[in-house]
Amino acid sequence: MTDCKVTAGAKPAVILLSGGLDSSTVLAIAREQGFACHALSFNYGQRHQIELEKCREIALFFGCASHVVVDLDLGALAPSALTGQCEVPKRDDAYEIGDEIPDTYVPARNIIFLSFAAARAEGVGARDIFLGVNAVDYSGYPDCRPEFIEAFGQALNLGTKSGVREGKFTIHAPLIKLTKAEIISEGTRLGVDYSRTLSCYDPDSEGRACGRCESCLLRKRGFKEAGIPDPTLYK
Amino acid sequence: MTDCKVTAGAKPAVILLSGGLDSSTVLAIAREQGFACHALSFNYGQRHQIELEKCREIALFFGCASHVVVDLDLGALAPSALTGQCEVPKRDDAYEIGDEIPDTYVPARNIIFLSFAAARAEGVGARDIFLGVNAVDYSGYPDCRPEFIEAFGQALNLGTKSGVREGKFTIHAPLIKLTKAEIISEGTRLGVDYSRTLSCYDPDSEGRACGRCESCLLRKRGFKEAGIPDPTLYK
Repeated sequence: MTDCKVTAGAKPAVILLSGGLDSSTVLAIAREQGFACHALSFNYGQRHQIELEKCREIALFFGCASHVVVDLDLGALAPSALTGQCEVPKRDDAYEIGDEIPDTYVPARNIIFLSFAAARAEGVGARDIFLGVNAVDYSGYPDCRPEFIEAFGQALNLGTKSGVREGKFTIHAPLIKLTKAEIISEGTRLGVDYSRTLSCYDPDSEGRACGRCESCLLRKRGFKEAGIPDPTLYK
Repeated sequence: MTDCKVTAGAKPAVILLSGGLDSSTVLAIAREQGFACHALSFNYGQRHQIELEKCREIALFFGCASHVVVDLDLGALAPSALTGQCEVPKRDDAYEIGDEIPDTYVPARNIIFLSFAAARAEGVGARDIFLGVNAVDYSGYPDCRPEFIEAFGQALNLGTKSGVREGKFTIHAPLIKLTKAEIISEGTRLGVDYSRTLSCYDPDSEGRACGRCESCLLRKRGFKEAGIPDPTLYK
């Protein structure tokens, strides 16, 4: 756990932080809304361990009240390209993202992450959970859809001590209807330094992006559409 | 992972197995219903590590198709008597279990366990998840109530690849409306050897029960009411 600056008297919130562009923007949004941010990250056997270093940098940069990294062995449960059991697909620049469920889908990942966020929220007395899911670019991931977020919130309110006794949880997904360009514009306004964030599914050990996976393509196009120079370091 | 006997051609199911009386009975029920049972247990920093040994014995005894033990550090997220941050309360025999939420409540525990069960179900191609929650004796735990189980199932069906593409998950909670005596009678009929199971919140290192925690009291009364000799080894 990294203990960072605590915002005195602020309402606590739990922020799921992956070290990528989206979740870093969400952290900036929660901070602007005045929350004392408790960041929560996962070491889940992902190929890109360097993202955890990015998480630590970003949590410090935004003065999080705490940052917990939870070790999870998701690879033992089910295979996915993001936990090293299959190849990360490479795309060319003309690739169109469809609505199929990609190989990079990690079984029940957001469900597991949100469950831990709920436990952490109970631990720090937070009623608010923020996550960076997005239904525009990631329509193929079922756990990025608004109807899932809503159903999960309902389950939390019925199935936790604090949901039952201390009032409802709110799951904030502020990016859910934004395009990548809109996310980048908003984050830039809030002071996110995107050179510190990592979106690539297959970076090298220095944290340089491959530039060819689905996530890199979305990010590249986002900067282009937003008219903001792309600070990403590519291999 | 322990690989045990696979029931050829049987429909797979994931069974949450804690090594206690309830989940062992649920495993026996799932097996009787003809499922190939994939047991899933957690090492979550619980005081009673011996329960994982019990899980392994029970999974083998019932010929599970697989048994995965997932390491989880729940204690880092929020305090609970079951993960060693507070004392396990001791009761006398006349203690009446009320509807308050006990100190032994572990924040979001069943939510986290069910999330992993969903990931495991996606991994083994199962549509069925069994767990041993009970709303009669544990009315104080919000995550043991039928309305929570139903809401969580709804979130799974909306938020997983297989829930969306391959048909709905069914979360089976066959004990939810049974008394402890009824559970013991049913398990005895199905061949559960309760001397192998451990319900105590505070056992010694040999796996002998304290006889004084809430869980021990419920178990003792259950055997008495069922008219079945209690095989539990007490300290």
